[in-house]
Formats: sequence, structure tokens, C-alpha cells
Amino acid sequence: MTNAATTAGAGQAGQSHLPQLFETHPRGVTLSRDAGALLEAIGAAFDCAQTCTACADACLAEPDVQAVVHCIRLNLDCADVCTTTGRVLARQTEPDLAVVRAQLQACVVACRACGAECRTHAHHQHCQVCADACRRCEQACDRLAGALAP
Amino acid sequence: MTNAATTAGAGQAGQSHLPQLFETHPRGVTLSRDAGALLEAIGAAFDCAQTCTACADACLAEPDVQAVVHCIRLNLDCADVCTTTGRVLARQTEPDLAVVRAQLQACVVACRACGAECRTHAHHQHCQVCADACRRCEQACDRLAGALAP
Amino acid sequence: MTNAATTAGAGQAGQSHLPQLFETHPRGVTLSRDAGALLEAIGAAFDCAQTCTACADACLAEPDVQAVVHCIRLNLDCADVCTTTGRVLARQTEPDLAVVRAQLQACVVACRACGAECRTHAHHQHCQVCADACRRCEQACDRLAGALAP
Amino acid sequence: MTNAATTAGAGQAGQSHLPQLFETHPRGVTLSRDAGALLEAIGAAFDCAQTCTACADACLAEPDVQAVVHCIRLNLDCADVCTTTGRVLARQTEPDLAVVRAQLQACVVACRACGAECRTHAHHQHCQVCADACRRCEQACDRLAGALAP
Repeated sequence: MTNAATTAGAGQAGQSHLPQLFETHPRGVTLSRDAGALLEAIGAAFDCAQTCTACADACLAEPDVQAVVHCIRLNLDCADVCTTTGRVLARQTEPDLAVVRAQLQACVVACRACGAECRTHAHHQHCQVCADACRRCEQACDRLAGALAP
Repeated sequence: MTNAATTAGAGQAGQSHLPQLFETHPRGVTLSRDAGALLEAIGAAFDCAQTCTACADACLAEPDVQAVVHCIRLNLDCADVCTTTGRVLARQTEPDLAVVRAQLQACVVACRACGAECRTHAHHQHCQVCADACRRCEQACDRLAGALAP
Repeated sequence: MTNAATTAGAGQAGQSHLPQLFETHPRGVTLSRDAGALLEAIGAAFDCAQTCTACADACLAEPDVQAVVHCIRLNLDCADVCTTTGRVLARQTEPDLAVVRAQLQACVVACRACGAECRTHAHHQHCQVCADACRRCEQACDRLAGALAP
Repeated sequence: MTNAATTAGAGQAGQSHLPQLFETHPRGVTLSRDAGALLEAIGAAFDCAQTCTACADACLAEPDVQAVVHCIRLNLDCADVCTTTGRVLARQTEPDLAVVRAQLQACVVACRACGAECRTHAHHQHCQVCADACRRCEQACDRLAGALAP
């Protein structure tokens, strides 16, 4: 793998460098036998973190901001929970499965609550987009948690 | 409360401004009837986040860094989990108790795992200090989770 | 835009929901006239945050971890700086340009330092991948900072 | 130092474990010759992060939330910038001074902007408390940046 190829394959298309990083990790992907499910959960968590951050901001710009106070609050919580979940999942060296599972569970709960609230504001299109990101992350984390069950 | 008094009371002594913030919150402290338990959990979470960040760094500087790889990994996870927990708890406006409880539970698990690992390296004094910070945070989050139980 | 179409367009392919979020933001993309440059900077910052988190972890798993202590340290700093930069850039509502520019500058400096260090460990393929992610983020933030110059 | 003494000295009083951590760091406090200035900057950064998180939340609960949209936005930025600054400063192992200085500078700018905005809403007492936390952090980071100047 050359530098140029790496950039062409990941950088220019705006894709993630994480799959390549995992392929070159000295211990490989140890957290899950299903590397695809793991990468999907990490990607979904960081995508949801960004989307919730931006949805809180979009809600703040709405003329009826009073009506979306609960949505902003859940967006902020969900963005934080997803960021931490993504970081914990990105580490492959000697994971503690109890820690990973508990954070995945917190992420499932946060995405479910935020997504449900966003769906009640679907007349705001950004809330509809955010609900999709939350659902994707909830499903990906739920699937991964199942694969890591004791 | 004047600006000067605030600074004298909190800033100069290096204490937290959070108790004053909560006293002046338009809805008060809604998350828990026991504001002291809440403030202790927030303070413990941010203290643990800092201490785990610094303990990972101190471990990295140890001549026998190979022996503390698992400790560094848990320190990094615990720092992230505690930061997110502290931020979620710092919000009083329309909390979702399921989200708060799930994140508190993740924090209890992370602090328990990190503290237990640190105690096995108690010949490194920084690991002993970190184990104390983890135990304080685990206990504070466990107590608050109990008070928020459905 | 239907829920199904949104999921098909972004969720299933693992792509970011952020472009759709920005299209539906009540104030539009206010931070920069060049929405493409902004989205590239946000995408590069979150990609670099993930990649640096995973590279620190991969370094930690190397048999010669002593030789990559400085790399781990810079990876951890760069991951934190990129996460905050991505979050600040994801907000479009009434940005303070001085704040945005200063954080972009910190991100450029962190990515430059981390990428340079990673390139000195290019025999570790993960460091090579991380150097690419750092270069992409440095360039994207530098370009955006130029577009936001006073 | 015994476990019990540590807990009595730091945990019960709600004080930070960080000074003890630094005293036991294998390389000592390498970032600055003035450990007091460093600890003050770290403490002020994490205090400001918490206070800004809570002030954004208190603003969100105000009946005139429309009037504090800019304040919420700056609070969110400042909370993120301070968190990252505190984490970077908490690491003593082989710091890159250019990275540390650039992040300190971003923190000074963010605290100045957020504090100034909060002072314009001083009829909200939480904004007044937050302005104090921002000023303390701005001053501590500015002082430390001066001590680290090339």
C-alpha cells in the first residue's frame, strides 16, 4: 500500500481511513469476529455524533425553538454518548467486554430516545435526517452488542 | 451575588462554579431531589476523567510500559466514559431518565474495571491515586443511579 | 425526501448524514460560502479523530511500544483536537469567526505534528495510514481557514 | 501515601486527584516549570467546560430562549474547546509545545468570546457565573501560554 494509493482510496473520496487502520493493527480486530459489524457500529456512532451536533444547532436556529427544547437536550446527550461509544469501539487492544457492552447499551438507549423525539418533529426535515442517523446507530450498536453477549 | 464575590468564592480557591450555576438555573436542579448527590457525581466524573487521562499518560512514561498496556487502555476508555457522563449529568433541562441511568451504569462499569486494574499496579503510585478517583466516581454514580431508579 | 430514501442514500452505504442535515438547516450553511470545503473539513476532522484514536491503540499493541511513546502522545492530542474542531465546524448558527479560526489553527498544528511523527514510523503501516488522515485534515482545515480569513 | 489518606485528602472533600497524580508521575510535571500555573489552567479549563455545558442548558430553559441563541452556541463551542485543552494539558509525557500553545490560544479566544457574550446577559445570573468561569480560564490559559512562549 503506497501513500498515494491510500490517499486516492480513502482521502479524496472522503471515506474513512479506519478500515485500513484496522487491517494494519498489530493484533487485528480483536473486539469482534465480525469486523464489518464493528466498522458499521463505529461509523454509525461517529455519523450520529456529528448529525446530532448539527441537529441541535439547526433546532436552535428554528423560529419555534421553544418547541424543540427537549429535542436539543436529547441531541446534545446523544452526540456525547455516541462520540464516547465510537472512541471505545475504535480501540482493539485488550478490550474489557463489560465496559464495551455497557457503553453500547447506553448508546442504544440514547439513540432510541433521541430518534423517537426527532420523529415527533419530522416537519423539521433536519429532525427527520437525524432520526435516520439515530436509527442506524441504534441498530448497529444493538447488533454489535448481541455479537459480544456473554 | 456580585461578580467579585463569585470570583472570590469559586475562582480563586480553584473550586467549581457548578454549584452556583445550579442555584441560578431557571428550572433548578431537576434531575435529582438530592442536589448534593448530583453535584458529587458530576464532580467525581470530571475528576476521574482528568485523573484517568493523566494516569494513562503516566503509565506511558513508565520504563515497563509493556506491563501497563491494559491499564492504559482502560484509563482511556474510563476518561471518555466519565467525560460524557459528567456532561449528561450537568444538564438539568428535560432529562430523559432512561438515558441518564444507562450512561451512569456505563460509568459505574468503566470505573470498576479501571479501578480494579489500577489496584493491581499499586507499586505505581499514580495508579493508586487513579484507583481512588475511580472508586469515588463509581460510588457517586452508583448512589445517584439508585436515587434515579424507576 | 422520504425516510426510506434518506436511509438508502446515506445509511446503508455508510455515508454521512451531514450533507443532508446542512441542506435542511433553517439558516443554511452560514459558516462558509464554500459548503464543499466545510463538509470536507468536518469529514476530515472526524476521520482523523477516529484514525488517531485507533493509531494510538495500534501503537500500544506494538512489541516496541517504547519506541512509539511520542507517537501515542501526539495521537491522543490530535484525536481530541480534531473531535472538538469537527464539532465546532458542525454548528452553523451564529458562529464566532475568531473562535472558529483559532480552533482550525490548533487543528492544523496538531495534524502537522502528529502526521510528521507518524511518518517517522512508516514501517508501522498503521502510522502510514494515520499520516495520510492527518495530512488530509491539515490540508482541509488550512483551506477552510484561508476561506474564513478576515 | 495510603489509600485512606488519599481518599480523605481528595475524595471526600471533592477536591481534584490531579495534584497527587502529578506528584507521582514518573517524569514529573514536564510541561511547565510552574506546576501551580499548569494545575490552575487544567482546573480552570475543566471547570469552564462544566460551567459552559450547564449554562447552555440553563439558557435553553429560559422563557426568552430566542434572545440567548448566540450565547448557547458560544457555550457549546467553549465547553468543547475547554475539554480538549484540559486533556492536552493533563498529559506530561513528551509534549509538543507548538500543539499545546495553539490549543491554549484557541481556548483563550473561545473563553473571551463566550465570557463577553455571557456578560451581555448578566440579568441571567447563570450567565454571570459562567462569565466568571470563562474569565478565570482565559486568564489561566493566557498566563500558561506566556510561560510556554518560545
